[in-house]
Amino acid sequence: MARLVLKFGGTSVGDIPRIQNVARHVKREVEAGHHVAVVVSAMAGKTNELVAWCREASPIHDAREYDAIVASGEQVTAGLLAITLQKMGINARSWQGWQIPIRTDGAHGAARIQEIDAGEIVRRFDEDQVAVVAGFQGIAPDNRIATLGRGGSDTSAVAIAAAIGADRCDIYTDVDGVYTTDPRIEPKARRMAKISFEEMLEMASLGAKVLQVRSVELAMVHKVRTFVRSSFVDPDAPGMGDFDNPPGTLICDEDEIVEQQVVTGIAYSRDEAQISLRRVEDRPGVAAAIFGPLADAGVNVDMIVQNISESGDATDMTFTVPAGDLQKAITLLENAKAEMRYDALQSESGLTKVSVIGIGMRSHTGVAATAFKALAARSINIKAITTSEIKISILIDGDYTELAVRALHGVYGLDKA
Amino acid sequence: MARLVLKFGGTSVGDIPRIQNVARHVKREVEAGHHVAVVVSAMAGKTNELVAWCREASPIHDAREYDAIVASGEQVTAGLLAITLQKMGINARSWQGWQIPIRTDGAHGAARIQEIDAGEIVRRFDEDQVAVVAGFQGIAPDNRIATLGRGGSDTSAVAIAAAIGADRCDIYTDVDGVYTTDPRIEPKARRMAKISFEEMLEMASLGAKVLQVRSVELAMVHKVRTFVRSSFVDPDAPGMGDFDNPPGTLICDEDEIVEQQVVTGIAYSRDEAQISLRRVEDRPGVAAAIFGPLADAGVNVDMIVQNISESGDATDMTFTVPAGDLQKAITLLENAKAEMRYDALQSESGLTKVSVIGIGMRSHTGVAATAFKALAARSINIKAITTSEIKISILIDGDYTELAVRALHGVYGLDKA
Repeated sequence: MARLVLKFGGTSVGDIPRIQNVARHVKREVEAGHHVAVVVSAMAGKTNELVAWCREASPIHDAREYDAIVASGEQVTAGLLAITLQKMGINARSWQGWQIPIRTDGAHGAARIQEIDAGEIVRRFDEDQVAVVAGFQGIAPDNRIATLGRGGSDTSAVAIAAAIGADRCDIYTDVDGVYTTDPRIEPKARRMAKISFEEMLEMASLGAKVLQVRSVELAMVHKVRTFVRSSFVDPDAPGMGDFDNPPGTLICDEDEIVEQQVVTGIAYSRDEAQISLRRVEDRPGVAAAIFGPLADAGVNVDMIVQNISESGDATDMTFTVPAGDLQKAITLLENAKAEMRYDALQSESGLTKVSVIGIGMRSHTGVAATAFKALAARSINIKAITTSEIKISILIDGDYTELAVRALHGVYGLDKA
Repeated sequence: MARLVLKFGGTSVGDIPRIQNVARHVKREVEAGHHVAVVVSAMAGKTNELVAWCREASPIHDAREYDAIVASGEQVTAGLLAITLQKMGINARSWQGWQIPIRTDGAHGAARIQEIDAGEIVRRFDEDQVAVVAGFQGIAPDNRIATLGRGGSDTSAVAIAAAIGADRCDIYTDVDGVYTTDPRIEPKARRMAKISFEEMLEMASLGAKVLQVRSVELAMVHKVRTFVRSSFVDPDAPGMGDFDNPPGTLICDEDEIVEQQVVTGIAYSRDEAQISLRRVEDRPGVAAAIFGPLADAGVNVDMIVQNISESGDATDMTFTVPAGDLQKAITLLENAKAEMRYDALQSESGLTKVSVIGIGMRSHTGVAATAFKALAARSINIKAITTSEIKISILIDGDYTELAVRALHGVYGLDKA
């Protein structure tokens, strides 16, 4: 017998038949003797409808009112799932954030969970009651509903799991796990059985859209074993109820991963743009002078590379921004040209950032050289490189995205089971 | 300067442009210097959508979950109106039932309001803040959302008005007041300037669908001056902001109505059916034996007439039920024929109950005779009669509905201004 949190996203609860399917997943775990808390998102499309009404009422609006409106979507799903479970003979009740309560800070619209009093939920486990929790929300110090920001239901689930001391937090989604790379690009991509929190954080923030970055951070801090699996399968198919080895990917502490791979996955992010400022005056504070204003304007600067310029008496500053922010960044930089003191601005869009991720890199050398060689062998030009302890990111022309991903996936042996 | 409650129903807040129109009504009162609380229903169609999901999930469902789901509709409208008011420069915030709190009993799905702590709302009047209250809901002793049953937002509005000591509770709806009879039947029907609570109760329960009966009862008990007016007019049209004499109908204590009419209105209710039990054994408890089982089966028995039967040694029992309940009632009575000891059961459907209502009846004689004469002059046969202190109800063949309503409207002088 274990304590489990099961989380279901918007497409998994899109209509009543799907909610009934979700209920069968819950029933399977209950009948296996586990104590279960379920966290649900709003039905697919509902959050967008509510957000659109807010915007129509006023493009700029009170985040506290936005929260009260938008949180209603999860409230509805939680009630409907509770009704469905009851109909199947399972003791269940819905919980809204303010009822538990899930206490957040006062940052309405993007609140952070501060404290969860899960005592009552745990007490009711002894009565075999399933807790159906409305995700994405809590109650702020002003006694009003606060939402956690888009995708916040993942974060709710992990936080509830930490609060009740769950053995595992199962994130049911529309994919059946985390893959070594995008299977739409590389059909040989394999589902990983396990991945460490650190690696998953890199995968999540680099475009593998399985889990919200924040929820992985939270899982890492509280060591919540988080499991990614599909809700779009027969809940009673063989193996689905196997507690020790269900189908999916476990995100866990690296200690749990006995056989460390050097490289575990290849991620990519399209629609990057690059800006180069040529012959920037080489003096202290120049980076702050450039990136401060960009940050203030909300431009998300990513890879930054600084070189001595050809002539040697100045510096070249190169960095990437999302393609959507390129024009804004250029306008800002050109307006401040006199102040920033650079000679010329060059830019290029249509780029892709490909990343090689693996916790084993920390203790292995030559990983980067292997990537460069593989790309060179396919005549793929490298425009910029950044590295961290467990990741190498390489900026290339977007036309070569698929070729590069497949090349890197193969060269590190990820094709093989 | 006054304290006002403004209530808007589902069609008045059906989309964002309509909510903006509602906001202009609110703005007009705020700018006149009044302190305002607004009570809103769910956007038209939303409650039905939510109820349909509950039924699809399970035809029989936990009323507590139903309440959590369905109450979300009003929560959304309250937030959207608050956003809209803020955009117009008005200080406003939304309140859900549990936030105020509006405390109810534990009868989920059809809860009654027990206590409203309006202290915080009143305190914020001094900061010129408009309270936008989600109607139809409160919080039950189990700390879960409770709804007041269909049309409960009228009741919410009157209860809030009583709690804050409002000078008036304005019910904005899709008609511009209470008429002497249905204008679709009698074009000469006139809008009443005032009607007493007692008369309005009879009008409301007899089919003039302007206001929920419960809200009128509550207004009568707490002497809340309630005003029925249209939301579908230009909020800034001449006279709309006239505090002492706005366009609409005031429902108030009879003391406020200086010039009492003998008859104030003609109401009607179609689709009535009549059942007669012939030669029922005339013994104590016979009525209980008949009507007890009908009540248990949820059949709403209305007009009851008991006569000595032709032969003089038994009684004839005649009563009406809604046409939709007729078959259920007949089956029930036939199954219990031996026990109830009657000779024969006769029934008739397609009937209409026409009612003459007026508080002045109490001190005037001959009101009933005038009605009977008017109907007789048009060869309309009377099938049953019941009377109360301020009402005469007459059952007739449904084909004569319009003719009877017009005849009675004319004979009491209601056609004249």
